[in-house]
Amino acid sequence: MKKLSDINRDFAQWYQDVLEASEFIDQSPVRGSFVLRPYCYSLWENIQKTLDKKIKETGTENAYFPLLIPESFFKKEAKHVEGFSPELAVVTHAGGKKLDEPLVVRPTSETMIYSMFAKWIKSWRDLPLKINQWANVVRWEMRTRPFLRTTEFLWQEGHTAHLDREEAVIFAKEILELYKNFVQDYLAIPVITGVKSESERFAGADQTYAIECLMQDGKALQMGTSHVLAHSFSKSFDIKFQNKDGQLVSPYCTSWGVTTRLIGGIIMTHGDQKGLVMPPKVAPIQVVIIPIYRKDEEKDLILSKVEQIRNCLEHDGFRVFVDLDDQLTPGAKFFKWEVKGVPVRMEIGPKDLDKNQVVLVNRIEQDKTKKKSFVSIDMVNREVANLLDKIQKDLFEKAKERMQGYQHKAEKLEDFGPELEKNNGLYQVGWCGSPDCEARVKEYKATIRCLLDSKENKTCFACSKSSKTDILVAKAY
Amino acid sequence: MKKLSDINRDFAQWYQDVLEASEFIDQSPVRGSFVLRPYCYSLWENIQKTLDKKIKETGTENAYFPLLIPESFFKKEAKHVEGFSPELAVVTHAGGKKLDEPLVVRPTSETMIYSMFAKWIKSWRDLPLKINQWANVVRWEMRTRPFLRTTEFLWQEGHTAHLDREEAVIFAKEILELYKNFVQDYLAIPVITGVKSESERFAGADQTYAIECLMQDGKALQMGTSHVLAHSFSKSFDIKFQNKDGQLVSPYCTSWGVTTRLIGGIIMTHGDQKGLVMPPKVAPIQVVIIPIYRKDEEKDLILSKVEQIRNCLEHDGFRVFVDLDDQLTPGAKFFKWEVKGVPVRMEIGPKDLDKNQVVLVNRIEQDKTKKKSFVSIDMVNREVANLLDKIQKDLFEKAKERMQGYQHKAEKLEDFGPELEKNNGLYQVGWCGSPDCEARVKEYKATIRCLLDSKENKTCFACSKSSKTDILVAKAY
Repeated sequence: MKKLSDINRDFAQWYQDVLEASEFIDQSPVRGSFVLRPYCYSLWENIQKTLDKKIKETGTENAYFPLLIPESFFKKEAKHVEGFSPELAVVTHAGGKKLDEPLVVRPTSETMIYSMFAKWIKSWRDLPLKINQWANVVRWEMRTRPFLRTTEFLWQEGHTAHLDREEAVIFAKEILELYKNFVQDYLAIPVITGVKSESERFAGADQTYAIECLMQDGKALQMGTSHVLAHSFSKSFDIKFQNKDGQLVSPYCTSWGVTTRLIGGIIMTHGDQKGLVMPPKVAPIQVVIIPIYRKDEEKDLILSKVEQIRNCLEHDGFRVFVDLDDQLTPGAKFFKWEVKGVPVRMEIGPKDLDKNQVVLVNRIEQDKTKKKSFVSIDMVNREVANLLDKIQKDLFEKAKERMQGYQHKAEKLEDFGPELEKNNGLYQVGWCGSPDCEARVKEYKATIRCLLDSKENKTCFACSKSSKTDILVAKAY
Repeated sequence: MKKLSDINRDFAQWYQDVLEASEFIDQSPVRGSFVLRPYCYSLWENIQKTLDKKIKETGTENAYFPLLIPESFFKKEAKHVEGFSPELAVVTHAGGKKLDEPLVVRPTSETMIYSMFAKWIKSWRDLPLKINQWANVVRWEMRTRPFLRTTEFLWQEGHTAHLDREEAVIFAKEILELYKNFVQDYLAIPVITGVKSESERFAGADQTYAIECLMQDGKALQMGTSHVLAHSFSKSFDIKFQNKDGQLVSPYCTSWGVTTRLIGGIIMTHGDQKGLVMPPKVAPIQVVIIPIYRKDEEKDLILSKVEQIRNCLEHDGFRVFVDLDDQLTPGAKFFKWEVKGVPVRMEIGPKDLDKNQVVLVNRIEQDKTKKKSFVSIDMVNREVANLLDKIQKDLFEKAKERMQGYQHKAEKLEDFGPELEKNNGLYQVGWCGSPDCEARVKEYKATIRCLLDSKENKTCFACSKSSKTDILVAKAY
């Protein structure tokens, strides 16, 4: 196997290398579309399972809406079509004939879903209506990069309708909090939340809340968004309900989503020179067991003990894989599973068997004296649980520390701009709110990632006029 | 709400009516594409969950492949393209430009997946390779009907590669058995398995095995297929591996799938004049609780007991819904949940509370003296479990009995054809194997559903020559 590029010198190439070496994805024949191989898809399934449960706990129900959307639907919301037009894939022919009206392959489903809401919502008693969809979407992106920007991706998109603006805003924020907690607690990635500037808002939204994370090269990654759509779609799709006073009014809507981009965030936050690192709570495999033996008598003894340990771990719900490959040496296996980022490796050989012990190896521990631990077989489940727990926590702490190292406060663009352009990082500065000042960060290839609640800076980073709000500026994926 | 059409007089209209009345699906603006509303999608999630587990137990792993397939890929397998061409939806424009090569929206993923297998399979050690995908597919059908034939549908498609033909055939049959057991044990629908005639085979398959079910109007529904593709795709996509003797040879492939059509099968097998009937094992809601009260003091007492019962049932994994709507009368609620086919209704009012009991109502029991049972609150979980179990079994027995009533043995087409055309049903006859004789069943709007292993009939139903095998003839959806 090819050696991975240096993660510190060429992060972008390391990213490509690690995806190939870990058999995570494969190029497809369609530009910017990738095959999610079983190991990767299993990570997505684990993400889905937890997130789906949390979304349902908010009173949201899953449903499924058509993939193909009439082009005319798409044009009903002016800002929406303006934002998405350049990215649409269009079906013009079907069943051997040219279609009367072209059909757009959904890039997002607001238009389809709100056209249905118009049929389903009649009275205030029908509200709030909370629907979620797990689906594939297609956006024809110019420059693609696996998970971060792809022609097709998988996601969940939530769409809700509420009685009034206040309720819609509260719900959009509830989802933002749900995303933040999920990303921090399960993916072990520290999150900053904030509001997007007008130019970075979702096409058709009144307000976009986002969770922003900092990758280990100091660039930001937007990992999820929650939009207050307010009346934009409910008016263009003529959704009306009778309120308690008997008047016909439009509901206030929200939409929100996270995508397979979360996977890119995991890789770019936790990966290291040896390969991927999977956070234990969502890892496709939490423990890989490597049996070690030379003679056939040893093999039988070891394998029967391994089978016993596997059953015991699986009984308690751990995700375990036993590597029985008889072509690879144990050393080659260690290497293989390190690249795939399995958090805990368990080794068991004849000498361990004599001592009724196994060796547990911590994927992320750098200190060689602490990397391995010898554990009594009788205590395996508890020790594995403790080690997975420790790794989950350490990953988050490590990422948090690194993020703090990248966080700076600054005042004037000409002072921090060159450093930002050269070494990335996240800059908290003041902003007067003008789009002209916002545009100036592009000189250094950066964008405003989000507006903060705080107002520590008195003057705008660009024009030096009075600042309205603090903002975070960074280069972003 | 509109009354449902008579299920015995106009089954097709009843089917449309019941789908609307139960808020199961909705028409979308795209011809033949339907919205799966939450209650319906929840049924699909339950089907998916069990089936996914069973598929994984065969050693098959999930993965995800791109939606859009280059048109040229599609043309590599001659029979495949011939079979699917009339049904393709084609993306010709994307990102505001005409594409150099049109992209087909996948109607099935053989071409995409086997192009990947060609990269992944190098040695006999890579086999068997077993991959499954849960996805949406698009087929531009002329006449559509919800779940049975739709422009877009949801499904799982399994694709495997094996060392030799024998292994591929064994695996294709293993999946057929898995489908049969799932449909019988979970959906409570009796299944007949058999082989398809050449003209009814999947485009590109060597052999197609199918599970066939008989709907309550006596028409057959193919509910799942498992194909031995043998060398067709492995040769067109140049999949080669080094066998144990060091030679480069092609693997033998299989593909297999079930779709949201399963939902149509459930409705057309179990539904009745009152509405849908959901088999307990996959029912979105297994128990609906209707609290009954008049005064406010009653309400508090009843609702606190209901909450206690709900928690107790949910703790044991039952899917429960409490109908707290304060606009509908209890009677209107009974009606509503009968239409939706919830298997068990629980009623609890002040008099029941006094007696420490609840009323359980069996959705499918016709005998009024047996329909209701009074159950001590202390025994609720056990009694609910027993009743759900009984309903699951009764549904299967009822469907089996009805199917047997529709099964006939016959000899000559002119004798049974008119009766088949008029009253539907399933006819077991002999067949010489000639396509000309096969074509003759079309005179009575029927098709050969499958070939059987038996050979009870000596002569062909059409030409009276010697019969090679028994077949089943029926009209089909």
